[in-house]
Amino acid sequence: MTAFSHFKSVKRLGELAQDPFDLAQEGALTPKRIESFMQEGCGLKLFYGTERVSEITMQALGDLAVESEAVEKMEKMQSGEVMNCIEGFESENRMVLHTAMRDFFENANPSPVAKEATELAYKELEKLTVFLKEIETKDLFTDIVQVGIGGSDLGPRAVYLALKAYSKQSRRAHFFSNVDPDDAEDVLRGLDLAKTVFVVVSKSGTTLETRTNEELVRDKLKKAGLDPKKHIIAVTGKGSPMDDETLYLASFAMWDYIGGRYSVTSMVGGVTLAFVLGMDRFLDFLRGASAMDKLALKKEMKQNLPLLSACLSVWNRNFLGLPTTAIIPYSQALSRFPAHLQQLNMESNGKRIDRKGRGVDFDTGAIFWGEPGTNGQHSFFQLIHQGTSAISVEFIGFLQPQYKVDLLFQNTLSQEKLLSNLFAQAIALAVGQKHANPNKVFPGNRPTRVLLADQLDPYTLGALLSYYENSAAFQGFIWDINSFDQEGVQLGKVLASQLIDLFSQAREKKSVDAKAFPLGQAFFRHLHKEND
Amino acid sequence: MTAFSHFKSVKRLGELAQDPFDLAQEGALTPKRIESFMQEGCGLKLFYGTERVSEITMQALGDLAVESEAVEKMEKMQSGEVMNCIEGFESENRMVLHTAMRDFFENANPSPVAKEATELAYKELEKLTVFLKEIETKDLFTDIVQVGIGGSDLGPRAVYLALKAYSKQSRRAHFFSNVDPDDAEDVLRGLDLAKTVFVVVSKSGTTLETRTNEELVRDKLKKAGLDPKKHIIAVTGKGSPMDDETLYLASFAMWDYIGGRYSVTSMVGGVTLAFVLGMDRFLDFLRGASAMDKLALKKEMKQNLPLLSACLSVWNRNFLGLPTTAIIPYSQALSRFPAHLQQLNMESNGKRIDRKGRGVDFDTGAIFWGEPGTNGQHSFFQLIHQGTSAISVEFIGFLQPQYKVDLLFQNTLSQEKLLSNLFAQAIALAVGQKHANPNKVFPGNRPTRVLLADQLDPYTLGALLSYYENSAAFQGFIWDINSFDQEGVQLGKVLASQLIDLFSQAREKKSVDAKAFPLGQAFFRHLHKEND
Repeated sequence: MTAFSHFKSVKRLGELAQDPFDLAQEGALTPKRIESFMQEGCGLKLFYGTERVSEITMQALGDLAVESEAVEKMEKMQSGEVMNCIEGFESENRMVLHTAMRDFFENANPSPVAKEATELAYKELEKLTVFLKEIETKDLFTDIVQVGIGGSDLGPRAVYLALKAYSKQSRRAHFFSNVDPDDAEDVLRGLDLAKTVFVVVSKSGTTLETRTNEELVRDKLKKAGLDPKKHIIAVTGKGSPMDDETLYLASFAMWDYIGGRYSVTSMVGGVTLAFVLGMDRFLDFLRGASAMDKLALKKEMKQNLPLLSACLSVWNRNFLGLPTTAIIPYSQALSRFPAHLQQLNMESNGKRIDRKGRGVDFDTGAIFWGEPGTNGQHSFFQLIHQGTSAISVEFIGFLQPQYKVDLLFQNTLSQEKLLSNLFAQAIALAVGQKHANPNKVFPGNRPTRVLLADQLDPYTLGALLSYYENSAAFQGFIWDINSFDQEGVQLGKVLASQLIDLFSQAREKKSVDAKAFPLGQAFFRHLHKEND
Repeated sequence: MTAFSHFKSVKRLGELAQDPFDLAQEGALTPKRIESFMQEGCGLKLFYGTERVSEITMQALGDLAVESEAVEKMEKMQSGEVMNCIEGFESENRMVLHTAMRDFFENANPSPVAKEATELAYKELEKLTVFLKEIETKDLFTDIVQVGIGGSDLGPRAVYLALKAYSKQSRRAHFFSNVDPDDAEDVLRGLDLAKTVFVVVSKSGTTLETRTNEELVRDKLKKAGLDPKKHIIAVTGKGSPMDDETLYLASFAMWDYIGGRYSVTSMVGGVTLAFVLGMDRFLDFLRGASAMDKLALKKEMKQNLPLLSACLSVWNRNFLGLPTTAIIPYSQALSRFPAHLQQLNMESNGKRIDRKGRGVDFDTGAIFWGEPGTNGQHSFFQLIHQGTSAISVEFIGFLQPQYKVDLLFQNTLSQEKLLSNLFAQAIALAVGQKHANPNKVFPGNRPTRVLLADQLDPYTLGALLSYYENSAAFQGFIWDINSFDQEGVQLGKVLASQLIDLFSQAREKKSVDAKAFPLGQAFFRHLHKEND
């Protein structure tokens, strides 16, 4: 039996969930509740009065954090203990040290392994600083293209879009990831290759999509009369097939203790982001992330924003039974942030065994999805308000726009209209509406929380990223699952390579071994063109 | 009591769901099953052997289609009966005639109201043809910017990206929608306004975001020394505040019987798509959609692709209890297609009363989400394979790339690698894997279906769009809910306007009525800057 199911606090929370706080009851949601269910840290305000929790629920969630030793596990993680493992079974057996990639500021972690990781990371940062100065002095490039997939794509892309307003003049970033040849072609045809540098990112150096796309880039560059070695940077692990400085303009290291989905603040995001934003702004981004890492070590659950958020998520998932979480930023710049959080949470916590290899007897990670507001209001919000499935919603908003260009129309600014919509949704989803016309009835009691900050700048985005990284890790710590591996993606890879072999056989021999992979062949028949 | 819960077929399906087809059982998924659970139409092949259905389940689903009179309702819809209504209560009381927007080809609907709608639509198309020729002759514009939100944005944007490879030389489309001022600014700063035309789309002519953004565009144009009237096109309903030809370069009509989320093939998508693709390709797109509309009238469930798909979705939702559907196109060009289907399905079927105003006693519309493959494999697929919540997955794939640029690497093309991954995922999710290491165990039995076509061209995309439109409508017909209204978005709008009033008051009087909207004020305190 798993630890989670045996916690006293879990029993207590189960009892409380029989009759959770009723937001839709007349007078239940008050201005005072909104004020007092609020916690601030690193420039973020978290409003959770619109969650279905009472003070008693919060106490029990605090007990859960203590019983599960969530903060102790976070300390171990940040100090470099081997947290990526399944006891008694073959597993990755690695440290988890993405927090060391940005531990350059206050209260640095004193543990020797964490310090060593931080020193190595800082060396790469210094190397990057020198490299960027050099290409800047020579005015070599205006455009950078990141070629990676999964964690080597989603996080850096989301952060680039979020901070694009802070780009250095006439510097742009582009991304492609998919093995779909149209993805690369769509990006490449818009570029002046002579002024473009590529960053190929793969920790293992063997990722099918990324290596295929690297070949495609090399081919393109050669055909344009350019030397690939002068236009491609590598970010990869020591000893990987890509770890060969003779093939690249520059090489930057990553380590096995940096999981892809936690790698934005390492060189995986660093090269592209520092190129476009400049090193100072990239450092501000790291500073925000590190500040939130320190906040994640606070013992007191309510003061520890990522832990507070994780506890609320566990309440919604395990006790209110909500299968999905919608991330709705009221900021167009965060358009791809939900896709990054989707990976971060679903790959981390979409697990079915605990850290001792026992099958879980409770639900783990929720399905994450989302789009910016107000857009979502004109799309899927119908279901959030009146559908038969309740959805846990996390809103994100900012007081100021990034470009400082706004218009007074009908006596309010666009940014004011935007924020008004955000808070109106949180209130509407909580309180609902009674009406004689059944189509105008809103049941209410749909739980939401709101993160509010002054402005989406590098520091704030760093804090926001780390808030979600640490919140995902805390959920895993509470459930006692391994949030740092991804065995679930292996089977598909193996079967895909068998299907790829069928294509290869067909090309070589014009026929395919009739006994190989019969299920694959049933589909392959429809894919393969006889006259190919 | 609702009709759905009383169908004999529903009782039967409930019994079958006690022991659904076990895909993970040794030998259950065979090449023969993959072949025989396949249906073809309008150039699409739908493979559903990897759904948890037996022949007996399919029979019961066929009975459900008959009992719920799904095809009869589709006939009524396409013929212009008032299908957007709730009997006995105030409701929109409208026809639902998006299929008439493209009924220009074979087997046109003979009903007088449908014919009239088609004639009106054709007139707009002819007007558009003349208008586009004129601006082409004068070489007025290279760029078009669509300003709309929800249905006036998601569908046209998804289709533009899907067909971008077929754009006319040096024509580009852009979109902004959000009331976030950074959304507009990010798009506008990259444009040569002198060569840009804007299409402002709002059926009611009162959409807050769209009218605010129109003002912003007018302001920008004036500041650039340009005449807004010569750069803005309107698409709006008769009699709306935007229905004033003196204010626009051109005006195109839409009608109350075209719901926003079903409006892509009307002028809502038409102006931008025909500008960028050319009229011939836009007509091909309509031709594909219309062909699928005709297929949606077939009585036999298995031959009626959208109905077949709807029945499988109802099985997964109501009988296997799956709360979400992931749309995973193995095509980067379809990157925003899941966001369109998210609106289409969640706004249509996220409902809690039936068409007689009775509360439903079963689950309605699922939560739709998704990202392209192979990207998703490196992100959330961990949870799909090994999480505690099963997810219904719909894969979409194409034999050919759009740009016809591909690279032979390690003896296979990128497109072949892409397709291999698609089918490998369907197989892996179905059969799973046994293993001594619990972390390498895959339970399997995770239902998927696969749509396969030769190429993502205008005709195929039209068919695909209509397949999903009609499938969403069929689900609503089976549940007997109204898939064509969206009352659930009203409450948030009302509360938002109250919050906007607080900002307006603060600006006018430097203080706010202390008694107005106290819940709003609790948040407003944090939003309003005293020294503003």
